[in-house]
Amino acid sequence: MDDKITENSLILIIDVLDNSKRYLVPIERGKFSTKRGEIDLTELVGRAFGTVIESHLGRSYAAVRPTFYDRIMRGIKRRTQIIYPKDSGYIALWLGLRDGMKVFECGTGSGVMTSIMANAVAPDGVVITYERDEFFFELAKSNIEKLGFANNVEMFNRELADGIDYAPYDAMFIDFREPWEHIDIIWSALAGGAPVAFVLPTTNQVSMLLQFLTNGNKFIDINVAETLLRFYKPVPARLRPNDRMVAHTTYLIMARKIITD
Amino acid sequence: MDDKITENSLILIIDVLDNSKRYLVPIERGKFSTKRGEIDLTELVGRAFGTVIESHLGRSYAAVRPTFYDRIMRGIKRRTQIIYPKDSGYIALWLGLRDGMKVFECGTGSGVMTSIMANAVAPDGVVITYERDEFFFELAKSNIEKLGFANNVEMFNRELADGIDYAPYDAMFIDFREPWEHIDIIWSALAGGAPVAFVLPTTNQVSMLLQFLTNGNKFIDINVAETLLRFYKPVPARLRPNDRMVAHTTYLIMARKIITD
Amino acid sequence: MDDKITENSLILIIDVLDNSKRYLVPIERGKFSTKRGEIDLTELVGRAFGTVIESHLGRSYAAVRPTFYDRIMRGIKRRTQIIYPKDSGYIALWLGLRDGMKVFECGTGSGVMTSIMANAVAPDGVVITYERDEFFFELAKSNIEKLGFANNVEMFNRELADGIDYAPYDAMFIDFREPWEHIDIIWSALAGGAPVAFVLPTTNQVSMLLQFLTNGNKFIDINVAETLLRFYKPVPARLRPNDRMVAHTTYLIMARKIITD
Amino acid sequence: MDDKITENSLILIIDVLDNSKRYLVPIERGKFSTKRGEIDLTELVGRAFGTVIESHLGRSYAAVRPTFYDRIMRGIKRRTQIIYPKDSGYIALWLGLRDGMKVFECGTGSGVMTSIMANAVAPDGVVITYERDEFFFELAKSNIEKLGFANNVEMFNRELADGIDYAPYDAMFIDFREPWEHIDIIWSALAGGAPVAFVLPTTNQVSMLLQFLTNGNKFIDINVAETLLRFYKPVPARLRPNDRMVAHTTYLIMARKIITD
Repeated sequence: MDDKITENSLILIIDVLDNSKRYLVPIERGKFSTKRGEIDLTELVGRAFGTVIESHLGRSYAAVRPTFYDRIMRGIKRRTQIIYPKDSGYIALWLGLRDGMKVFECGTGSGVMTSIMANAVAPDGVVITYERDEFFFELAKSNIEKLGFANNVEMFNRELADGIDYAPYDAMFIDFREPWEHIDIIWSALAGGAPVAFVLPTTNQVSMLLQFLTNGNKFIDINVAETLLRFYKPVPARLRPNDRMVAHTTYLIMARKIITD
Repeated sequence: MDDKITENSLILIIDVLDNSKRYLVPIERGKFSTKRGEIDLTELVGRAFGTVIESHLGRSYAAVRPTFYDRIMRGIKRRTQIIYPKDSGYIALWLGLRDGMKVFECGTGSGVMTSIMANAVAPDGVVITYERDEFFFELAKSNIEKLGFANNVEMFNRELADGIDYAPYDAMFIDFREPWEHIDIIWSALAGGAPVAFVLPTTNQVSMLLQFLTNGNKFIDINVAETLLRFYKPVPARLRPNDRMVAHTTYLIMARKIITD
Repeated sequence: MDDKITENSLILIIDVLDNSKRYLVPIERGKFSTKRGEIDLTELVGRAFGTVIESHLGRSYAAVRPTFYDRIMRGIKRRTQIIYPKDSGYIALWLGLRDGMKVFECGTGSGVMTSIMANAVAPDGVVITYERDEFFFELAKSNIEKLGFANNVEMFNRELADGIDYAPYDAMFIDFREPWEHIDIIWSALAGGAPVAFVLPTTNQVSMLLQFLTNGNKFIDINVAETLLRFYKPVPARLRPNDRMVAHTTYLIMARKIITD
Repeated sequence: MDDKITENSLILIIDVLDNSKRYLVPIERGKFSTKRGEIDLTELVGRAFGTVIESHLGRSYAAVRPTFYDRIMRGIKRRTQIIYPKDSGYIALWLGLRDGMKVFECGTGSGVMTSIMANAVAPDGVVITYERDEFFFELAKSNIEKLGFANNVEMFNRELADGIDYAPYDAMFIDFREPWEHIDIIWSALAGGAPVAFVLPTTNQVSMLLQFLTNGNKFIDINVAETLLRFYKPVPARLRPNDRMVAHTTYLIMARKIITD
């Protein structure tokens, strides 16, 4: 990749003294105001990504190139609970996502997991995603276009209850409240042996889904898991975990389709 | 992807009653022996992936298509502690890996993380990886070829101390015992603003690395984290975590290069 | 306490090089055989607790005074899943156990929690405990006598279904499979405002119990929690968690009785 | 215990609809004002603990008997980081605290752990505790008197560096920044074979302490651990962990004194 900032670059500005303050900004905006002074973005053109400059009040800011993950986390509008990286990274691996795969998702939500999966199957694969709520459908559409994944995503404003088109799928990601109600539709649209991952926040939902997954020899390799991510204060002489952490996001339920006569 | 098993397919055989028993087998082997009877693999040709067949002793086995992750976990020889999926999935996201990126790794070890990163940057990207130990270099080479990632990996049997060629890199993954000794080499070879992830098993190593990362305005966005993955018994009416779990694999240390005058 | 070992002492022998090898032994036994040689216990008489001696094969062993907790963990027969110290310590605090309290328990099991609670309410308090299974009743009786808590425990081989005598109680600990079936009996026998702690291993049981606790203005301050205990390798220069840990023992459910008209 | 509220009772008032709102109040105060109306405490006299009454604005409050732990958590002034119940309960068990023991503590801090240990060794035992900071010494003194543990605690406003009087001790709890500096004093004052527990917040401190504990055959049974406590939303049909939790309080380091010639 090009390592100079240009007039068309999108940069992630990180406050050097307080890294939690970070902003995704296009250089073409010209000026950017923070609580600690204004940054003249045009000064950055022609300089390397990673350069540290000062606001007019003397505060230091680094201008780094955003990763696709920074852009997902900072560059779009979210109106739903999103899948956290501790979960989405594990799911993407477990599903075995790779270039060229055809993946089904329901529901799209804000499009965060859609984008992560589109990135994983790009450039030759596709994520086909259903969202029944028109507001979220439009929001996700806008987000996915903004993130540049439109070529690898096909979005539909429809319900799973109406069936799944373009089957079979190499993998599926299911994120809606009562997936067991449509477990037969999900099973039918999966390729034989293909993996499916569900996310559900409560133990009651997990138990209910497991009833359907374990019944009738339809699925194998059924896993239930949860992930925890604990951050530490990065102080060399006083290394210790942060005081607080996220205690729960979702349970992950994974399975593979089997075919018995 | 094709959904019928052919004479050239590689399949993952999973024991239906005990899913922890699983074997990666090429159909061309003809026969496969388990403790619970022999499986005639030729019976599977022309049938769908996911099909359940019986051994000659009547035990049921599902023949699913292995994901690339199954192949990494089951299909190669490992002689080192590997990076677990709970960690590698998170690292891949945090590094923002995607098609076309140029990534540096040191050391290669058994080639597991190399393969995961190669998968993430395929088809147009590359992972350049250094391994100083000749035994591991040869092992990883064989593994990476077997997994089909040879086109996206360039391996070198050399030390980091001799410098890093082909810089700058869009991202780096560092996995050896005393990375702080070569922190300047690592910094120099990173593109401005680019991310680097380290893995280290002990708190003493983390403290030492942090001393170098936090010194001299070379890095920003310094994070230390650990991930935990807890599995549950997938029994609908008696949902509960497994009795035991992995308590520790590695600490993750992440940072981005900055450039100050 | 006396700090010399006498002929009547009970000692905990710990292998100095492998602390996981430990044995609770009365001095009066005279000789004690380990895989690494015989220990002459009579040599210890008149020496201080904590003294290190050698077996006849030259292996070092420390002879420490067992705490009451060592005696519970090592000195009795257990046939049930016990409450772990990570849980029992927290429960004892939450229940506010102290000298003089009158506590009810059901079921007794092997008597481990009974003993911990008896210790906490000694010398003037009492734990009244029900166990319907005659085998466990006899086992726990023998254990509690051996541990010296008989003066602070009254055991009954009976079912909760028949009601609870000697009410009201200052605190309760409930450890059997379907406590919701007798929630009215439990409520009636609790003193007004008094705390009760339940342990249940599955999420389904927790949900069911919560239905009963949250229904009808009978309880307040309802808490559900789980504890995790992670050990580290105690190596100064390579501090890190153990590779594996206990992932689950029980869920803790706590509440207090309220009285509404 | 008496189960009627009297004019001299201390009660814990819990808001029935929001249990996190709770107040420790003596009945003799007469009136108690909340954001949701005034409570006439005199109405409670002669009624059972656990009774629910209404404020003048119609909000329901339960008046329960505070446990000693409620009084520690709500009834005293704290100016230091306290030991959490997830840790103090486990420590009390590991130290084997029981009636009659003589325990040493340094430093006293706000007196929370002092009180928990005093409760555990009451009525016949004693906690001797050192606090070098005069402000904390006075604070803890006031707290311990208020909690009614003065008979089982002897407090000294002095440093550990000056040695430990009244040795030997059956158990010790050490809570100050650099305990390794006085490890010989600690060792000398412990009874042979007796247990000591340390709390330290950073990994660097743990490593340093371990250097001293593992050196010179002074200690055995050296453990390093951390505890985690995760709460769940107590909703029967939607059981799930809370969104956030405490990620770190302290590391626990435990050992026993041994004596070699």
